[in-house]
Amino acid sequence: MIVVEKIAALRQQLTVLRDERSHENQPAAVGLVPTMGYLHEGHASLMRKAKEQSDIVVLSIFVNPIQFGPNEDLDKYPRDAERDLALAEKLGVDVVFLPSVSEMYPQPTKTKVKVEEVTTRLCGASRPGHFDGVTTVVTKLFNIIQPQKAFFGMKDAQQVAVIQQMVLDLNMPVDIVPCPIVREEDGLAMSSRNVYLSAENRQAALVLSQSLFAVDEWVQSGEMKTVGQLRDRIVEQIAGVPTAEIDYVDILTFPGLTEMASDEQLRNWKGKAIIALAVKFGATRLIDNRIL
Amino acid sequence: MIVVEKIAALRQQLTVLRDERSHENQPAAVGLVPTMGYLHEGHASLMRKAKEQSDIVVLSIFVNPIQFGPNEDLDKYPRDAERDLALAEKLGVDVVFLPSVSEMYPQPTKTKVKVEEVTTRLCGASRPGHFDGVTTVVTKLFNIIQPQKAFFGMKDAQQVAVIQQMVLDLNMPVDIVPCPIVREEDGLAMSSRNVYLSAENRQAALVLSQSLFAVDEWVQSGEMKTVGQLRDRIVEQIAGVPTAEIDYVDILTFPGLTEMASDEQLRNWKGKAIIALAVKFGATRLIDNRIL
Repeated sequence: MIVVEKIAALRQQLTVLRDERSHENQPAAVGLVPTMGYLHEGHASLMRKAKEQSDIVVLSIFVNPIQFGPNEDLDKYPRDAERDLALAEKLGVDVVFLPSVSEMYPQPTKTKVKVEEVTTRLCGASRPGHFDGVTTVVTKLFNIIQPQKAFFGMKDAQQVAVIQQMVLDLNMPVDIVPCPIVREEDGLAMSSRNVYLSAENRQAALVLSQSLFAVDEWVQSGEMKTVGQLRDRIVEQIAGVPTAEIDYVDILTFPGLTEMASDEQLRNWKGKAIIALAVKFGATRLIDNRIL
Repeated sequence: MIVVEKIAALRQQLTVLRDERSHENQPAAVGLVPTMGYLHEGHASLMRKAKEQSDIVVLSIFVNPIQFGPNEDLDKYPRDAERDLALAEKLGVDVVFLPSVSEMYPQPTKTKVKVEEVTTRLCGASRPGHFDGVTTVVTKLFNIIQPQKAFFGMKDAQQVAVIQQMVLDLNMPVDIVPCPIVREEDGLAMSSRNVYLSAENRQAALVLSQSLFAVDEWVQSGEMKTVGQLRDRIVEQIAGVPTAEIDYVDILTFPGLTEMASDEQLRNWKGKAIIALAVKFGATRLIDNRIL
């Protein structure tokens, strides 16, 4: 496994690897797994999928400052490069790109990639500027690495929708491969931020996945017939947990992320929809979602 | 010469050409000349330069609606595909990409590439949103064609500065090659918009290049010592032409396009500077510039 910190070195290594691994006029396919590190089983599932679908797997680890708001957790975002590299090695990653902030932003960027509409609701509303930071850094990584495929976890479902919109609108030559949410045994969606949780909040946070798991039952029982009723039911369940502070509970179309009428009948809905939750437990904000 | 209208067909053709023209493990270099058509000698100089520096020359012709403001000349922008194709063929262009608006924007784009600061002055101030349209369509063309080099005329000096900023900030794997302004024999900078000019305004418009040509003389004579004096002198000369309506006359750093103090001594200035003009003659807005 090669570990590089510099963009120029990475490009050089990739040129060599592409040459070595292309076969019979078929260029080698590069699969990128972009992460902020502090890897868990969710990331591992992305790396495994990338390994299956690519000739060369690149893992990037970069805590991207421009996607954090001024009052967010940039400075204390958890980091453990050594453990991350060991996991990447074990999973057969070919190249780890581990740039410094000054390598990625040698000067403050004057250029941003901005996606509208898909970014206005959910985390886009709670974290202004967040998705501009995400789309800008992902564009940079795509331009540096030039992958054929990029693998993203559906835990950040809005991120997947935003990046797919960007790729479509800008004709980026990359396939976005969304991968299912990976959960702890008790249902909690895996997240690097779970380490922030106190034992009590770790337990309380189960209400997120539990409310999402219960959706089918509620709908099938006939109690929750409309979008509005279902939303109210989830809010009620989460609000029943004393330490839970709801940021949003939303039911939207997917991947367009447009509003659904409150009186929309759930059984009549033909397209895909998403139930998306963001809830704070103490200082820790967790997200979870389910696609209907 | 291959002429294609569809993105998928273009990508396919380029894959074939790249295979044919790569030599000894050296991938074929693609040179892109992005234009809005109605080609003149200025464009021809870009195609010649691209031919010298690339294995495959791609000319794109696309009048990009999203870089025109609501009251601008999108509908009447001059077009002559037949003549353009004849010129491209004569100059040895390999592929002409001639997409429709619906091919480039099958749905209204929700994604824009936005460059700040460099876009605030000059044409960025007069034409709000113009450069967002330019950087967005150039990003799309880069992603579709994946050129190693792209050739731009210095008549649109701010466009060159903005695109270089974008390429730098987003790590785009493209070399931007700025090419000198090409002028008519009497000095008028070549522009597709020159066809709009009445005979009288065609004559009046010579004041632009004449004032720029006179700069050295004015500075050397010692009359114009400061940025402010030089600007005043140019304004005075242009304002002396009855049909000329000044949009801007600005002296800025280049390529950063930041303000220079009015009392800045021209002889002490170490970096590059640009004198940039935008002047309307009747309904036709012309630009010209000179790098100091």
